[in-house]
Amino acid sequence: MQNSKTDLSLGLMTEMLEFSLADAYISAGVEDTVACFDLFFRRIPDRGGFAITAGLSQVIEDLQNLHFYEADLDYLREKGCSEKLISYLRDFKFSCDVWAIPEGTPVFPNEPIVKVRGPIIEAQMIETLLLLSINQQSLIATKANRMVRAAHGTAVVEFGTRRAQGFDEAICGARAAYIGGCSATSGVLPAKKFGIPTAKTMPHSWVQMFDDEYEAFCAYAKANPEDCSLVVDTYDTLKSGIPNAIRAFDDVLLPLGKRPRSIRIDSGDITYLSVKARKMLDAAGYADCAIMASNSMDENIISEMVSQGAKVDCFIAGERLITSASAPVFDGVYKLCAIAKEGRLIPKINLSENVHKITIPSSKQVYRLFDMESGKAIADLLATDSEEIDETKSYELFDPDYTWKRKEIEHFVARPLLQPIFKKGELCYKEPSLAAIREYCAEQIDTLWDEVKRFENPHKYYVDLSPKLWDLRNLLIEDYKGVRK
Amino acid sequence: MQNSKTDLSLGLMTEMLEFSLADAYISAGVEDTVACFDLFFRRIPDRGGFAITAGLSQVIEDLQNLHFYEADLDYLREKGCSEKLISYLRDFKFSCDVWAIPEGTPVFPNEPIVKVRGPIIEAQMIETLLLLSINQQSLIATKANRMVRAAHGTAVVEFGTRRAQGFDEAICGARAAYIGGCSATSGVLPAKKFGIPTAKTMPHSWVQMFDDEYEAFCAYAKANPEDCSLVVDTYDTLKSGIPNAIRAFDDVLLPLGKRPRSIRIDSGDITYLSVKARKMLDAAGYADCAIMASNSMDENIISEMVSQGAKVDCFIAGERLITSASAPVFDGVYKLCAIAKEGRLIPKINLSENVHKITIPSSKQVYRLFDMESGKAIADLLATDSEEIDETKSYELFDPDYTWKRKEIEHFVARPLLQPIFKKGELCYKEPSLAAIREYCAEQIDTLWDEVKRFENPHKYYVDLSPKLWDLRNLLIEDYKGVRK
Repeated sequence: MQNSKTDLSLGLMTEMLEFSLADAYISAGVEDTVACFDLFFRRIPDRGGFAITAGLSQVIEDLQNLHFYEADLDYLREKGCSEKLISYLRDFKFSCDVWAIPEGTPVFPNEPIVKVRGPIIEAQMIETLLLLSINQQSLIATKANRMVRAAHGTAVVEFGTRRAQGFDEAICGARAAYIGGCSATSGVLPAKKFGIPTAKTMPHSWVQMFDDEYEAFCAYAKANPEDCSLVVDTYDTLKSGIPNAIRAFDDVLLPLGKRPRSIRIDSGDITYLSVKARKMLDAAGYADCAIMASNSMDENIISEMVSQGAKVDCFIAGERLITSASAPVFDGVYKLCAIAKEGRLIPKINLSENVHKITIPSSKQVYRLFDMESGKAIADLLATDSEEIDETKSYELFDPDYTWKRKEIEHFVARPLLQPIFKKGELCYKEPSLAAIREYCAEQIDTLWDEVKRFENPHKYYVDLSPKLWDLRNLLIEDYKGVRK
Repeated sequence: MQNSKTDLSLGLMTEMLEFSLADAYISAGVEDTVACFDLFFRRIPDRGGFAITAGLSQVIEDLQNLHFYEADLDYLREKGCSEKLISYLRDFKFSCDVWAIPEGTPVFPNEPIVKVRGPIIEAQMIETLLLLSINQQSLIATKANRMVRAAHGTAVVEFGTRRAQGFDEAICGARAAYIGGCSATSGVLPAKKFGIPTAKTMPHSWVQMFDDEYEAFCAYAKANPEDCSLVVDTYDTLKSGIPNAIRAFDDVLLPLGKRPRSIRIDSGDITYLSVKARKMLDAAGYADCAIMASNSMDENIISEMVSQGAKVDCFIAGERLITSASAPVFDGVYKLCAIAKEGRLIPKINLSENVHKITIPSSKQVYRLFDMESGKAIADLLATDSEEIDETKSYELFDPDYTWKRKEIEHFVARPLLQPIFKKGELCYKEPSLAAIREYCAEQIDTLWDEVKRFENPHKYYVDLSPKLWDLRNLLIEDYKGVRK
């Protein structure tokens, strides 16, 4: 099989700059210097109140399998990589420490989702691999969750495969959509690979194949008496589709003692049609026949359909879910935050010309502070590794941009979010099952206040810095800006 | 290697509905009925004047390799597929006829890009596989071409890997971007796999690693005297980045007799900074040092930078290219257009509740009519297979929606766009090289009038129906609507 996915050289699933940088480290003799990197994002897609982190499972798999084929090394040699680098890559073994916020956790801008510490040549080289999977799956988990929340309890199933941006997105995107709360996928490969329930529907081509819609429905009902789902808008939903479906149920399923599964409406004013369809089905004795709705669903359409009383039992979400169409970029970045010098980790900053791109220095932990009484999340707090949060005392939070915005909190629990994943390259994390991740995700979202979960103008959840980290950051900014005045 | 891409079962890279449909065909005894399907799209991304078709090469590869592993069959059995279907899949051999418009061709809504004819069980089952690759690559080729046209001759390089929607998008998206006119990719795998030139740049982390920016630049210049590219916005572009870069060029490269490659600006007002940077570099004797610009580039930003006189030699396009961020869906569909009955292909239509979703029946050819004098494309014409276009006579085109809009043309050449790709499952098409596709793409875009190439309110290029096809379509609409009144 010569498919583009099957001859994958994982080691080359990166960008050329990573290799030229590796060569520069070797040339400067600093390749073993210990460095610390943060993977974080800056903007919540769709101006939402939070994102959901996902993709860690693929990162773990990739880091465990990272290696270079001889043919890959030949190619890199051709592209000018040094023999030293080639021989380093030939013997490559991942040896970094990695921490990460578990998949399914709501996350916020500027806090590390993944933290890597190790020899800079390694820690830098895995940048692209990490970003690819975390960006990809966090994007889709976040989008799926928006649609699931908009549906207010009605099932949302993922049908994105045919419009996905590639095979891999169809596969891993389905996984992420399931984490975000979708009930099933149309994709066979993700269903098999990850144990996701499958969903299916009837396409129009079946109906078109026959001279007559009723004939088509009867033939399908005969072929699928256990799982009969009919698409009713090929010619005219109310005048022919639903009446013919009911006739086929009556004439084929009833004599067999079977019940229909569902009908699907794929065009027209689906809210209106669904209400009419529900009445027609109920009147014919098919109150148990579900109504599925498809056609470019997203959280806005779903939300409005629900609020206008659409009689839909299942929303089919395709292209706008699997591409996160209204916000198709998860803008994760991977930035150096500290580097070892004489045995100590020295905090590092990236100032940039854009204020929002200034990084938060130092190796950090992310604490989520929960109110003990309500169980709700109050804020996230970034602190240096050496700090501890004393839960027995009150704690004063302050906005890192507007420091006069302050809030004294007490009776809280501070839960560290970054968990150890790899220790010196060895996996030290027991991955939860996908079903457990999905359940954990729903639970964690329940800890957010409704104000944060709003679609329009959500309340900005606070990600604050500890006083120590705040001081440190300002010192570095002043230092660099001062020195260069 | 257990990566998600390497254990790919191509046969399952589809949706569950395709298998239940296959079972329904078998159950109804119609699996061998010959059917004809069109793959076409409805909307041009970004309200552009045209799209570019791409992805055929992957479709060819996939169709040649389509097969089912025993473990795949076990899974399908578990999901309720019949033993008849399982044994059909075990012996599966692709046997359809396939036609396609060659990669790199500008294409328009509603015209078949791919046409498949064969036993309906097969022709239907490959739906998802075809849509995935064509949708994915056409999307990115179209977007890349917009950016390349906006740059008016300045190079655009693709740096999307880290923000791509998955590994496969990073790989095949880079290929599509190259077809659309990008000059290079940052991705190592697509570069190696498809022979695309590579591009690289220096990340901020190198600069941050050192105590001092000048020191960082010198170390990098020493390590990369042949290919020295420096990122200059880590602390302050004009006050420190560029002066330090010039010093490092003077102090390290000059004594070695080497010239710098480029600097990169990644934040701030890049147009303004590039003009200043150009002056500073020129004054220091580095007029040959290129300026690269990055930071969420798209066709709008590039276009405005060019019109405001930015001194940029290379635009780095990342996330907004590889996700086609402003229009991330290519809405290709795959619809039945004819089915055999008593040895004859009977045209079929899908009416739908939405007028724009009504399909064009019959097995068709797409003709592009070129004006003999200017060489420009006048219109596309869809005609039934049996029709021939007589170039020696004048031809009256008419708008299929507003039939009073008519245009008599003469002195034209009618070039059939759909080329035979597979004949009874055997490949009969010689694929051009990627470089040839890229060149052909640029040539074909040259045959479009400027009005069609506009970004804002482009002229609508005509895709007309032959009188025979138009009559046939109306007959079918009236027939179905009439019968069910």
